[in-house]
Amino acid sequence: MIGIFDSGLGGLTGLCELRRRLPLCDIVYFGDTGRIPYGTKSASTIIRYSMQDMAFLSTFGIDAALVACGTASSTALDELRQRYSIPIFGVIDPAAKDAVAVTRTGRIGVIGTPTTIKSGSFERAIKHLDKSIEVTAVACPLFVHLVEDGFTTPGDEVTRAAARRYLEPLAGKVDVLILGCTHYPIISWAIEEALPGVRLISSGRSAADALADAVGKTQSGSGSVRCYVSDSPEGFEAAAGVFLDGIDVGKAEQIDISKY
Amino acid sequence: MIGIFDSGLGGLTGLCELRRRLPLCDIVYFGDTGRIPYGTKSASTIIRYSMQDMAFLSTFGIDAALVACGTASSTALDELRQRYSIPIFGVIDPAAKDAVAVTRTGRIGVIGTPTTIKSGSFERAIKHLDKSIEVTAVACPLFVHLVEDGFTTPGDEVTRAAARRYLEPLAGKVDVLILGCTHYPIISWAIEEALPGVRLISSGRSAADALADAVGKTQSGSGSVRCYVSDSPEGFEAAAGVFLDGIDVGKAEQIDISKY
Repeated sequence: MIGIFDSGLGGLTGLCELRRRLPLCDIVYFGDTGRIPYGTKSASTIIRYSMQDMAFLSTFGIDAALVACGTASSTALDELRQRYSIPIFGVIDPAAKDAVAVTRTGRIGVIGTPTTIKSGSFERAIKHLDKSIEVTAVACPLFVHLVEDGFTTPGDEVTRAAARRYLEPLAGKVDVLILGCTHYPIISWAIEEALPGVRLISSGRSAADALADAVGKTQSGSGSVRCYVSDSPEGFEAAAGVFLDGIDVGKAEQIDISKY
Repeated sequence: MIGIFDSGLGGLTGLCELRRRLPLCDIVYFGDTGRIPYGTKSASTIIRYSMQDMAFLSTFGIDAALVACGTASSTALDELRQRYSIPIFGVIDPAAKDAVAVTRTGRIGVIGTPTTIKSGSFERAIKHLDKSIEVTAVACPLFVHLVEDGFTTPGDEVTRAAARRYLEPLAGKVDVLILGCTHYPIISWAIEEALPGVRLISSGRSAADALADAVGKTQSGSGSVRCYVSDSPEGFEAAAGVFLDGIDVGKAEQIDISKY
């Protein structure tokens, strides 16, 4: 049984990838929709929320966990690993590894929420692999809301203008860009338009791959998926569909996360 | 002593107005920055959060309360009034009254968060005053984030494009527009540009006026202001400045709102 948590539904992109790689494993997903977003809140608050999220998932007796949120991975992973002895995968190290493997110029860009970028987590992970790599990191606070609020149709002028504004400092400077938030792949068309020719690394996909590689040989289970949220589950199926690429995860159940 | 709460810092626009009208009254402000935004979360979650916000404020022995959040006013006011016997002012009725007083065509527009618009609260309040008035209500989920993330400079192309998109259904159809969220006055330039000649009603200002009219004659106190937030108070002063129009409210203290 693998537990996944995210600030909301963006982490379902990681669930998809995991389901594809490990069709038999059982998955329990928690989306903290009652307190979303994490990315503009302080590190201390995100650590408190992440500990509660993990405490809830651990009631299922999970064997491994995926922190499918760039902000929580950047700020709370050390605390989570100190408290729990199961393997806990974040999105930082796997995405850094994939980016370092494909860069040709040694110049990598990172985009994420303000709290992720402020933490310097991706930069540290990349430098740990190769000190010579130049990293340019840019916070894109509006991107998560553009996805949540449906400004996702290719060519959308609001998303296009926001992407141009945020990504301008990266233009011509990097050949690989880490999407440090699991919402961003949904507007990759706008990111590609603003940075033509740059190779994009989805941090959610990298993390799911790393987890699948680690536990793949021992997988067993019935391929079940259970989803929980902290806001009303009404409308979950429609909202989740954006991230699920056709995979059916059924309905979600609401829980009171402040009790964990 | 007057208590004010909001999902974040937007309600400080109401605090400003109140301070101007009642310089001697003591004010305690709570901004739920650890769970912001409210406007895209479900009514049941907003009611639960609002009850906690009010429980915290009531520990100060407040004599009246201002719910300076359009979403909380739209969904939780009845529950709050049932639980507490002090006068509780929301932003809905005062703004509806001001809008009905100034419309010449009898066609009023309302913009707010998805949860506010879904509740139909402004429409009900307007129809209660004058059944013949035609109301067109539009949800603008991205506006609160455009303000929070600093896309506020007059002429900003991202905010301009979003305003054009959202407000298009109102163009030529209304002569008065209620800004049903206390964040929106900060980008009134974009709203005016998209709807030239339309008179804007700030719901936070209308509510503060109504409260000041009701308690004005009995005011006493030392004109103190105390601010509390549920996320880290770091950066509070800079973030609050956007809404405060030069008024100094000092620092904010962090509390754990889930305990109330």
